[in-house]
Amino acid sequence: MLDYIDKNRDRFLNELLDLLRIPSVSADSKFKNDMLKAAEYVRDRILEAGADRAEIYETAGHPVVYGEKLIDPALPTVLIYGHYDVQPADPYELWDSPPFEPVIKNERIYARGSCDDKGQFYMHIKALETMLATNSLTCNVKIMIEGEEEIGSSNLGTFVKEYQEMLKCDTILISDTSIIANDVPSIETGLRGLTYVEVEVIGANRDLHSGVYGGGVANPINVLCEMIASLKDKNGHITIPGFYDKVEELTPDQRTALNAAPFDLEEYKNELQIGDVLGEEGYTTIERTSVRPTLDVNGIWGGYIGEGAKTVLPSKANAKISMRLVPNQNDDEICELFTKHFESIAPASVKVKVVPHHGGLPYVTPTDSVEYKAAEMAMEESFGKKPIPTRGGGSIPIVALFERELGCKSILMGFGLDIDNLHSPNESYGIFNYYKGIETIPLFFKHYAELKK
Amino acid sequence: MLDYIDKNRDRFLNELLDLLRIPSVSADSKFKNDMLKAAEYVRDRILEAGADRAEIYETAGHPVVYGEKLIDPALPTVLIYGHYDVQPADPYELWDSPPFEPVIKNERIYARGSCDDKGQFYMHIKALETMLATNSLTCNVKIMIEGEEEIGSSNLGTFVKEYQEMLKCDTILISDTSIIANDVPSIETGLRGLTYVEVEVIGANRDLHSGVYGGGVANPINVLCEMIASLKDKNGHITIPGFYDKVEELTPDQRTALNAAPFDLEEYKNELQIGDVLGEEGYTTIERTSVRPTLDVNGIWGGYIGEGAKTVLPSKANAKISMRLVPNQNDDEICELFTKHFESIAPASVKVKVVPHHGGLPYVTPTDSVEYKAAEMAMEESFGKKPIPTRGGGSIPIVALFERELGCKSILMGFGLDIDNLHSPNESYGIFNYYKGIETIPLFFKHYAELKK
Repeated sequence: MLDYIDKNRDRFLNELLDLLRIPSVSADSKFKNDMLKAAEYVRDRILEAGADRAEIYETAGHPVVYGEKLIDPALPTVLIYGHYDVQPADPYELWDSPPFEPVIKNERIYARGSCDDKGQFYMHIKALETMLATNSLTCNVKIMIEGEEEIGSSNLGTFVKEYQEMLKCDTILISDTSIIANDVPSIETGLRGLTYVEVEVIGANRDLHSGVYGGGVANPINVLCEMIASLKDKNGHITIPGFYDKVEELTPDQRTALNAAPFDLEEYKNELQIGDVLGEEGYTTIERTSVRPTLDVNGIWGGYIGEGAKTVLPSKANAKISMRLVPNQNDDEICELFTKHFESIAPASVKVKVVPHHGGLPYVTPTDSVEYKAAEMAMEESFGKKPIPTRGGGSIPIVALFERELGCKSILMGFGLDIDNLHSPNESYGIFNYYKGIETIPLFFKHYAELKK
Repeated sequence: MLDYIDKNRDRFLNELLDLLRIPSVSADSKFKNDMLKAAEYVRDRILEAGADRAEIYETAGHPVVYGEKLIDPALPTVLIYGHYDVQPADPYELWDSPPFEPVIKNERIYARGSCDDKGQFYMHIKALETMLATNSLTCNVKIMIEGEEEIGSSNLGTFVKEYQEMLKCDTILISDTSIIANDVPSIETGLRGLTYVEVEVIGANRDLHSGVYGGGVANPINVLCEMIASLKDKNGHITIPGFYDKVEELTPDQRTALNAAPFDLEEYKNELQIGDVLGEEGYTTIERTSVRPTLDVNGIWGGYIGEGAKTVLPSKANAKISMRLVPNQNDDEICELFTKHFESIAPASVKVKVVPHHGGLPYVTPTDSVEYKAAEMAMEESFGKKPIPTRGGGSIPIVALFERELGCKSILMGFGLDIDNLHSPNESYGIFNYYKGIETIPLFFKHYAELKK
């Protein structure tokens, strides 16, 4: 099997580069055609890999690509999930090379989506090809690659419900997460949920002269800043009433285990070039970024943002605000709590609008399941080290839905690194990680089939 | 004289419209050529009006137009000041008609600069023409129209110092302010000063994934909001140490006089469509907008502001912040106090940059001076009502400099209205106000010459 991968090394890489050249940004409607192009490219590669069939399924939003290779009803079935859409690439000016013209530098692939998630789901297509070419496929394989993960998978729920029968499987394998380091393999056993809203604070019916009206009329930017500031107390606790009610507090043992993962605060600060970390009082950085909920402003704008100075008192100000959720918070519930609270703290001098974007439930998977063991054995075999179970800070809203609709757990066997700049300029993915994934995935199938016997 | 104005009514208006068609935005370098075009237009019209000479004087920034008509050294000399530059017109989408394609609707001229200040200084050129054509000029006239008022007149100070002799005068007449209403004439006897800064809060060395780092690393937008919110207490008092130290408090009598000006709070709120006013505890809206200092965010930006949702933890956030100052605050001093304070409240998890833009000193003029009396008599004659002395909330930083360098007071005899949308989309200027100004200005010259006898 390793021979096959080695013989086709360059082609495996070039095929990924071609995929990375397609600017499949789901959030921005001007890339709609590129989204379709990407979907077609994925479908064709799945067929070439040797699938029985692969098709593009339309949805109310961007299409889903689905393919399958069913070799024996008696064997277990693994559903591969990934997404071909990527985050917007702006600010473009901060990229050292154009985001959709992949370049290879010091053993890394630089391009938007190189790791999140094109590079990672494409490993599965190449792994499938490898297993089929070497007659070593031990499970039935179903592959579902969606196009709306970065905008909340708004239409995948409907798709999964509609094709529940077709998607029936024993477990779901997802590569959209990270390992601690190339010599410290790890598997994410938990993910944070997400509530994402856009808020607007409206003052006067028009922009005003800050001299004529300044001091007497509410400035929506100042008001928005005050409202946002009031959402956390001086200890970094979120002040929205009821926000923490359902938060699952870890036991002392769980906290110890979690903090046992290798982590060097100084290195962390140096790598980010920050003077200090900042977060919720009483928790470590590992905890703050994995098992504690957050509230972050992801974007803010209002007034004059051009060159020079304009003494305007703007009529409105906007912000995009997201909250990462932990078990057992519910994204819809938190969205309601936020909206109610945000509206309640607005002074009479302004109007406030809150528009919910997408959300997602938090997720945890047990480490004693067959599928977890299979992933553990696969990584141990390919890395030569037993992977550490970690809790991730990111969100893959869909995994909770899979559990509900398909009745099975997802395994988050990702191969990225924290230095991959996901969602940032100069996103990259290690060549080592790409091939290591292609090597490891077949081992998962092997061990999973054996354990299921 | 009225006949002459009446006979040339249309031409007077069309000449202004041509000037309004030139997008002379001083803040944005891409309009540099239009700035020059506007200057040349003004110079040519001053010559046509009958001036002895008019020239364009280069400065380190945008040029100054200067012209003069000296009829008799024995007569008093009046210096007219105005500015041909305008505020940026964005957001363009909020204009009902293109900002630089003037249209006349219900007796108003709609265009950027129609009132501030093209419409108002151009009245003086037409008044000069009228006085010369009707042999009724009673003073020597000097006209200085600059191109950097909206960006702080950064180079006019040098110009005034360099040409002190040429600019020598007995008083300065400026039309860049408002009257209370078309049937309630008023003269501004005070202006607020201005300190304008741009701030940047920098977190990590790159944009981060808000899931992977959220909760553990400072979010510059959240931090900026908290810092801005902390600049005022719950009563709307500014918390910068020393900010109020030199603020001139009005006597009870002065406050009574100031609040005697006709003002209807309900009408004010309805006109702006706001549920309530907002400002410093213990002061009326008139006081908050004229004799009290302010702190307003004029622009803010950071993170993802495009369509849809991006879960980014941005590396920096910026804001433009201005403070309106009152006697006897000093703009440089306040700028220093702000900078020191803002840097001091930044948490260790971020870096902060403060870049000063332009500033200006506050200004007050006595109501018992010859020039004030002349303006009062002129307005009383043309409006049929004695004008009310008011205190303006806006800033014309240069008047304090005039007093220092030229040793004389400025008279702020403006003809705008609060509904003119200065600095806002759909700026407009009343046709009534334009012609009323052209009628009133010659009366000022008449009374001023008589009073100086």
